[in-house]
Amino acid sequence: MRTRAAGSPGAAESLAVGGVAPDGDGWFVMGNESFVGLASRVRAVCASSCQLDQPARRGGYHSSVSQERDLATWRELGQQLRVDAIRSSSAAGSGHPTSSMSAADLMAVLLAGHLRYDFSRPEDPRNDHLIFSKGHASPLLYAMYVAAGAIEDAEMLTFRKVGSRLEGHPTPILPWVDVATGSLGQGLPIGVGVALAGKRLDQVSFRVWVLCGDSEMAEGSMWEAMEHAAHAGLDNLTAIIDVNRLGQTGETMHGWDLDAYVRRAQVAGWHAIAINGHDVAEIDAAYADAAAISQRPTMIVARTEKGHGVAAVTNQNGAHGKPLADPEAAIAELGGISRIRVAVAPPDGPLPEPRPEPEVVRLPAYEVGTTEATRRAYGDALAAVGSARRDVVALDGEVSNSTYAEIFREAHPDRYFEMYIAEQQLVAAAVGLQVRGYRPFASTFAAFLSRAYDFIRMAAVSRANLSLVGSHAGVSIGEDGPSQMALEDIAMMRAVHGSTVLYPSDANQTASLVAQMPDREGIVFLRTTREKLPILYEPGETFPIGGARVVRSSPQDEVTLVGAGITLHQALAAAERLAGEGIAARVVDLYSVKPVDDATLRESAAATGRLITVEDHWPEGGLGDAVLDVFAGDVHPPQVVKLAVRAMPGSATPSQQLALAGIDADAIVAAARDLVGAARGPGGVATGQEASVT
Amino acid sequence: MRTRAAGSPGAAESLAVGGVAPDGDGWFVMGNESFVGLASRVRAVCASSCQLDQPARRGGYHSSVSQERDLATWRELGQQLRVDAIRSSSAAGSGHPTSSMSAADLMAVLLAGHLRYDFSRPEDPRNDHLIFSKGHASPLLYAMYVAAGAIEDAEMLTFRKVGSRLEGHPTPILPWVDVATGSLGQGLPIGVGVALAGKRLDQVSFRVWVLCGDSEMAEGSMWEAMEHAAHAGLDNLTAIIDVNRLGQTGETMHGWDLDAYVRRAQVAGWHAIAINGHDVAEIDAAYADAAAISQRPTMIVARTEKGHGVAAVTNQNGAHGKPLADPEAAIAELGGISRIRVAVAPPDGPLPEPRPEPEVVRLPAYEVGTTEATRRAYGDALAAVGSARRDVVALDGEVSNSTYAEIFREAHPDRYFEMYIAEQQLVAAAVGLQVRGYRPFASTFAAFLSRAYDFIRMAAVSRANLSLVGSHAGVSIGEDGPSQMALEDIAMMRAVHGSTVLYPSDANQTASLVAQMPDREGIVFLRTTREKLPILYEPGETFPIGGARVVRSSPQDEVTLVGAGITLHQALAAAERLAGEGIAARVVDLYSVKPVDDATLRESAAATGRLITVEDHWPEGGLGDAVLDVFAGDVHPPQVVKLAVRAMPGSATPSQQLALAGIDADAIVAAARDLVGAARGPGGVATGQEASVT
Repeated sequence: MRTRAAGSPGAAESLAVGGVAPDGDGWFVMGNESFVGLASRVRAVCASSCQLDQPARRGGYHSSVSQERDLATWRELGQQLRVDAIRSSSAAGSGHPTSSMSAADLMAVLLAGHLRYDFSRPEDPRNDHLIFSKGHASPLLYAMYVAAGAIEDAEMLTFRKVGSRLEGHPTPILPWVDVATGSLGQGLPIGVGVALAGKRLDQVSFRVWVLCGDSEMAEGSMWEAMEHAAHAGLDNLTAIIDVNRLGQTGETMHGWDLDAYVRRAQVAGWHAIAINGHDVAEIDAAYADAAAISQRPTMIVARTEKGHGVAAVTNQNGAHGKPLADPEAAIAELGGISRIRVAVAPPDGPLPEPRPEPEVVRLPAYEVGTTEATRRAYGDALAAVGSARRDVVALDGEVSNSTYAEIFREAHPDRYFEMYIAEQQLVAAAVGLQVRGYRPFASTFAAFLSRAYDFIRMAAVSRANLSLVGSHAGVSIGEDGPSQMALEDIAMMRAVHGSTVLYPSDANQTASLVAQMPDREGIVFLRTTREKLPILYEPGETFPIGGARVVRSSPQDEVTLVGAGITLHQALAAAERLAGEGIAARVVDLYSVKPVDDATLRESAAATGRLITVEDHWPEGGLGDAVLDVFAGDVHPPQVVKLAVRAMPGSATPSQQLALAGIDADAIVAAARDLVGAARGPGGVATGQEASVT
Repeated sequence: MRTRAAGSPGAAESLAVGGVAPDGDGWFVMGNESFVGLASRVRAVCASSCQLDQPARRGGYHSSVSQERDLATWRELGQQLRVDAIRSSSAAGSGHPTSSMSAADLMAVLLAGHLRYDFSRPEDPRNDHLIFSKGHASPLLYAMYVAAGAIEDAEMLTFRKVGSRLEGHPTPILPWVDVATGSLGQGLPIGVGVALAGKRLDQVSFRVWVLCGDSEMAEGSMWEAMEHAAHAGLDNLTAIIDVNRLGQTGETMHGWDLDAYVRRAQVAGWHAIAINGHDVAEIDAAYADAAAISQRPTMIVARTEKGHGVAAVTNQNGAHGKPLADPEAAIAELGGISRIRVAVAPPDGPLPEPRPEPEVVRLPAYEVGTTEATRRAYGDALAAVGSARRDVVALDGEVSNSTYAEIFREAHPDRYFEMYIAEQQLVAAAVGLQVRGYRPFASTFAAFLSRAYDFIRMAAVSRANLSLVGSHAGVSIGEDGPSQMALEDIAMMRAVHGSTVLYPSDANQTASLVAQMPDREGIVFLRTTREKLPILYEPGETFPIGGARVVRSSPQDEVTLVGAGITLHQALAAAERLAGEGIAARVVDLYSVKPVDDATLRESAAATGRLITVEDHWPEGGLGDAVLDVFAGDVHPPQVVKLAVRAMPGSATPSQQLALAGIDADAIVAAARDLVGAARGPGGVATGQEASVT
């Protein structure tokens, strides 16, 4: 691992960084030499503004004078960050200044003394990663950007205003933000994913710094992250816990009991240090300590005061999440507005090897007429895609022999991540891995992805690109019963912004879709089936995302049966039986539930006049609703009958389950018979628009 | 707290329990005295079957002979439980015998020596609670029921068959099962809720025993439970960790490192003991120890072998979740089929005070024409309902000053539970509290209920009755940005089996709904709004769940605007403006999104010919889809235009957000104008069915 001991060559280089502010906005430029002895007067000198070089710590302490200089600068910078957090939240009329003020010294020392980040090249793979797990401290983050010269003071004051990049909680609209935060307890588990990328895949020596609130330590996801980070030996990860004692409504469970956090971190296998979070020397030493530790992540447990520096709000309950009552007095109390600019040390060291170009994917092939489970095809196809593309990685929640992620694991053990039974960490790690440009596939039973729904929701806010794969969909899993059945997963995943929802019916189709998934933007969900299903399609056929396939049709069709996954096969069986009764039924394979193939559905509706949707899912939010939505807004929408699971299932065989749920061929035949019978009218003659095609 | 020391009067009483098996099925009845010295031969004696009294531990050890007798019996019983787990899973052709076998000795000693439970009176409030957090060990649970005489051997062999109560994972279809399990990591947090009911509310001395798997200890929810149980001093809670080392695919993170679990429990504040989980004396001592500890929960960390007792599967990877290959040989290896019946000790002590009858609820009243936020009305109303009903309790995830649960907390501090920022534990505790007949209301930001979606899904499988309240719905929260906005909550909650989804538009309506919620079966979700909204309805009006309210109508209506919450007010403003343009619009308040008022929607559709739905939610699975679903199946469904949030929001004021999302009055006016214009045709004359009413 990389250490950042004083006097290292990389650190010394940073002394050369500096110069006139490129925007020529009149900031006072200050060389490193001229700075000696000036620290105590910096606020006065900076009455207009000034720019400071990177403090000298990375160059080594030449004297107690330079050390004192650093400490004084950091203190000044901490005050500036507080002032700016107050200014931006006051300008906005909302926000979290007090939660920013508690962590200001922690971030001042990080920014000026330890972070390695080139703000002009956020895409540099060697850059450190700074994640505000306590996303509500966004005023502090934006104040850091001002101090680093990444944004102007004027932009900072657009905080929370319409059209501003500086949202109430950070999002990756800002090029320096990796992931959206604001739902507590997510930044650290995502940081684990970023750190895994650095340590296991990139082998680049960036560090991941995660600023956490103490309130969010109550989230179980933080514990999942602590367990996993220690298990993976992530010495490139540092969690900084801002223990300001106060949550939104009152004291946290552990208050200022720093040792409570230290002991928890230690028992999980972390290196843990308790410090005074307002003592810049202690903070500096803790960061240096974190960088020197190997094989273990470090947790810095910092005792701080919420609202530190302004007596009216310091350590006061009831001051959460609101601007200060008297910002001007507060700013004066903090020493006034200052314009310290930090030349943040850029990363050093060699760039990682460029990833090899993708090769041609050789997908598995399944013979038409045989049977295979789509979950198995997923595993086969993912392993094949992984052979062609080095950016594809897989994670699983300790069920890889059910999801068949194990096939990828066996083929590409270096790119497989066992996340154990911790679905929040599973999804969070995938989000972290995609921060570094990987294309993760995270799999578990589809039912258990519901455990990570908040992470999935937030991944969409993060504009993350990742694939989620849920096996064991629906009642057709059989005997295991409802706890293992995903019956709400399509609803849940459709309601994720910008998501893609795929539900293949056949193994070759699955393979075609899996090959497309890594290049798809947003959250892509693949729903796989436990049971083996007949192979319908030839190997090598392409099934574009957003498409649908008409698998049976004739000019005489009087009804369209729309299915996907296991229900498509029931629809096909039903169509065959209906044909024997003199009813021609079209069958559509709606393998892409979102986006849905409007054209094919409209064509079928126009041709057959009515549709029956069949889904192994609750009636709400699934395939049937996706079809209804196509015609929402039409002046004359077609008749759409939804067959779905309506009663709580118990245990039974897969075929019994389908029958009991009313989504098997029998139920489809009965529904189609009723529908077509009614349409034909009492004389048995078809009526309505489909009459023209019979 | 209750202790169960040897020689306690309650324990002695249990010696008198026994007698002929009530079903007269020929089981051999054995008195306590005749049992002395028989233990080593019990299997032979029980070649047909026999019934054993409660072993003597509760009556005190009179001699080493009686102690030896207990130990031998427990060992025999453990073998029987293994044999029966093998038999039931073999009969089913699926299931988890090896995961049952590891915990068989733990459960034998519990059933015969420590559990206090009257299987004939599962509703007895003094009964202990036994929760299988590792629900896949259901064959073991059902074998225990056979041993306890609760079910017959023949029923046990219906395991996993269609129509059987003995599902693949336990559900409360069985009267002795409190909650469904099978999604790992849920039993312990729910057990925390049951223990909270016992300790803080009922003040009854039942104990809660939770059998956990070691794999599920990786779930963050288990950590939330550990933290909360210790914080609440739940000495009536005992977690038994079956450390069989092997998960589904391989070794757990901690393997057989018992100390890893012990240290984690201790650091969380638990009493923790490591034992050999196949040594019945150690198990017995551990349970006695757990009962003797006060102010702290106890974790018994038991080293076990998966598949213990059958060499072919003992401690073997790859033997998870499947019947044994040679069950007959395995049964022989375990000593053959036996029929030990345990007279489980019933609970003792006084019954708790009956809960007082509900009084008349005096709901808060808000004056028409003023404004109030529905979230505030929720707090006011819940406090009022709490004054009338002692069974109503409230929990919040450390945001009670945002959800206004704080009003209940101030009024009824004894029935308020602060769950900190741990939404899984928040919902799990509510599930546990309703096990004991309480009517919990659990609140947080609606967005963060997504953190607990798996728990909500499983609560429906548990047939739980509880209320969830989500505040800060939609983009209209304003500046905080998307991380805090619930935009998928209606979709998520509609897709819960048997759920109710309420979305009030007015404070008096909110109060009316809150008063109905405790008596509603299933999962009831109330979506509240951050912003103050005009009061539309008179205090005291009733708004039945499942209803809708036509708030504006005329015989000339050409379009129906359907809204709820904040969008209803936008729809009303739009209708007013449309009237100025010569377009009469009906407005429907769809405050009950599920169940939805079919009749009112059909009436409106018939009268006005077309509908516009407006929702502060993504387009998928929300209010618009609920309306579309009403007409699904109709031969001629009406035109339904959905206005919903379609782009990822940022920060902005509430009214800017509504405008940007296209769900404000302007957008509604524009949509209605287009729709009615198109319907009227080029001549501006209305066409279609609504022509008759103009």
